Amino acid sequence: MSLIDLGIGRPNTRDLPLEELRTASIHVFAREDANILQYGPEAGDQLVRTSLANFLTAQYGTTIAPMHLTMTYGASHALDLILSRYTRPGDTILVEDPTYFFALKIFRGRDLNILPVRMDDHGVDLTDLRLQLHLHSPRLLYTIPTLHNPTGIQLAAERRQSMLELTGQYNCLIVADEVYQLLSDSHSAPPLRSYDAVHVLSVSSFSKILAPGIRLGWIEASEQHQIELLKCGVLHSGGAASPFVSSIVHEMITSGVQRKVLDRLRSFYQRRVDWAAEILRDHLPEEVTFYHPQGGFFLWLQGPEHLDCEQLRPDAVAVGVDYRPGTLFSCRNGFRNCLRICCTYYSENETETAMKILCRLLQASI
Amino acid sequence: MSLIDLGIGRPNTRDLPLEELRTASIHVFAREDANILQYGPEAGDQLVRTSLANFLTAQYGTTIAPMHLTMTYGASHALDLILSRYTRPGDTILVEDPTYFFALKIFRGRDLNILPVRMDDHGVDLTDLRLQLHLHSPRLLYTIPTLHNPTGIQLAAERRQSMLELTGQYNCLIVADEVYQLLSDSHSAPPLRSYDAVHVLSVSSFSKILAPGIRLGWIEASEQHQIELLKCGVLHSGGAASPFVSSIVHEMITSGVQRKVLDRLRSFYQRRVDWAAEILRDHLPEEVTFYHPQGGFFLWLQGPEHLDCEQLRPDAVAVGVDYRPGTLFSCRNGFRNCLRICCTYYSENETETAMKILCRLLQASI
Repeated sequence: MSLIDLGIGRPNTRDLPLEELRTASIHVFAREDANILQYGPEAGDQLVRTSLANFLTAQYGTTIAPMHLTMTYGASHALDLILSRYTRPGDTILVEDPTYFFALKIFRGRDLNILPVRMDDHGVDLTDLRLQLHLHSPRLLYTIPTLHNPTGIQLAAERRQSMLELTGQYNCLIVADEVYQLLSDSHSAPPLRSYDAVHVLSVSSFSKILAPGIRLGWIEASEQHQIELLKCGVLHSGGAASPFVSSIVHEMITSGVQRKVLDRLRSFYQRRVDWAAEILRDHLPEEVTFYHPQGGFFLWLQGPEHLDCEQLRPDAVAVGVDYRPGTLFSCRNGFRNCLRICCTYYSENETETAMKILCRLLQASI
Repeated sequence: MSLIDLGIGRPNTRDLPLEELRTASIHVFAREDANILQYGPEAGDQLVRTSLANFLTAQYGTTIAPMHLTMTYGASHALDLILSRYTRPGDTILVEDPTYFFALKIFRGRDLNILPVRMDDHGVDLTDLRLQLHLHSPRLLYTIPTLHNPTGIQLAAERRQSMLELTGQYNCLIVADEVYQLLSDSHSAPPLRSYDAVHVLSVSSFSKILAPGIRLGWIEASEQHQIELLKCGVLHSGGAASPFVSSIVHEMITSGVQRKVLDRLRSFYQRRVDWAAEILRDHLPEEVTFYHPQGGFFLWLQGPEHLDCEQLRPDAVAVGVDYRPGTLFSCRNGFRNCLRICCTYYSENETETAMKILCRLLQASI
């Protein structure tokens, strides 16, 4: 029996829009414009920045101009680029607790002093945030406001406003990881820059709305932040993220195919999460609770205090299932009784089988 | 009259292999393998690492294995990745004087203490290198051993051996920027890792041998260095440099087209440099000398001590020509009497016109 690793946070490979990208590539090559193979400007290909700005304006319902966008090799590269310009080793930053574990790895790689801010079911706890801001004067707060990874929680609209007022008072930048924003439903709160266009740098990516393998993302921020970001030596030397890939994505957007792909993926993920939540409701022991997100990839399970999901992991692997233990997502080694699973990477059959095995194992461990 | 900027260091756009990449893309999409759109392993797509290893083995004449390669978004990204794992702000590094100006920008962005090592017409001056190693115990030496940028100088074969013995004694890493290695002729010395596979990390790129706009490069280094490089959080989060682009490049290599493109570009650049050198010989004032490289993109002109190429630049722009002044390439603001021109970006006609204007201007300024 082969391992089903529910820890893998990826789209299903078969659902990726290969045919659509093939068609877009054919159109791009048909133009016989070799500029797509040349070095591009530091901020990225002007065409894709324009079409992306129009696309985001339509999706977000707030006006975004090309000058507010710098193209990157995905959201992680975007985050690292921001850190390279706005932080120095030893600087203090705040993160939600829990938060995206690879972001923690990127912060540690830059020797940052990482402090946790408490969350509840509506996002960042503002009382704790105020305390941390007051005590530590952090350089920035890294937040995942929509379909939070790992919990799936949405930062409530009214809290977004208050959070930004608060961080603004302490001159604390916000780096908003909004890679799941476009996957959330129409009732979700708008992205953070709608509330404060000055202090928020938003990172996002085509990885969740098109395909991870093309490695294209962006930073949305004020013109002043863009000027700072473009001081990066690597961008000066190599130019922007792939002009070649950008030309294909530009074609995807202007042909309207990107919007169709996004609509398809968004509803696919929402259905998949609902379906997975139903299985969990039916099979989890009652001591284990979970948050039912409005979409995205992940479900976050919380067991009783004595449950140790790190210790349990070898047993899970032995019976053919893996997951990501909660401690991975915490800068203070917390959430030992929690775990994250992804419900999008494997087929329904495989996912269901693995979730049921996991539920039985949790039942036996409590 | 529009400006001809001989400072731009790029291939000519029309010479980029658009048709070859179109054909390769068609073959890739025909395989209907959506894995090219998925996240890839941190070190890069295994197929392209294998075909690139075979390609380099054939070109370099020394065996390179896939495990010695990590794919990157070009040579600058490769350099930055190495710095992220091997340096901390304040560390001392050595660079050739002059050196690639955007590399200096990348080093400054990481707050490194940059010290110059003298060069002569055969590369790094070993006496000065020994002195700097002895005095400053630098973390690494950044060198461009083949078709050096900006000078076009080749580090002599016997000096390569001595340089590596010397740096080895002081436990100083070598970061070899070998983006022009494959453009040099068959009489050139082999790449630096042929002399010392342990202390050398080699960065290179498809920008010079295929197309800059695809943004794909690599780091060639020992397995032990690869392990260190792969601790990078951004690679863990986003996976390797574009699996999509890698699949097309893999097709280019295995079909034999990459070799043909390289042969064509290499001889094109060599002819172009010879042609440009002849024009300079005929038109430069005798007080201005230049090095005639065996290929590549650049020519490095050296005037008498009183020539100020920074001061001259507005005059050059006023008469329709630009270049890169020597000071840009120096970490100690040296080479005021030098300048770099690129002879590959514009057409022969434009390049010739601009070079002759520049020669007349230099004549008038001396």
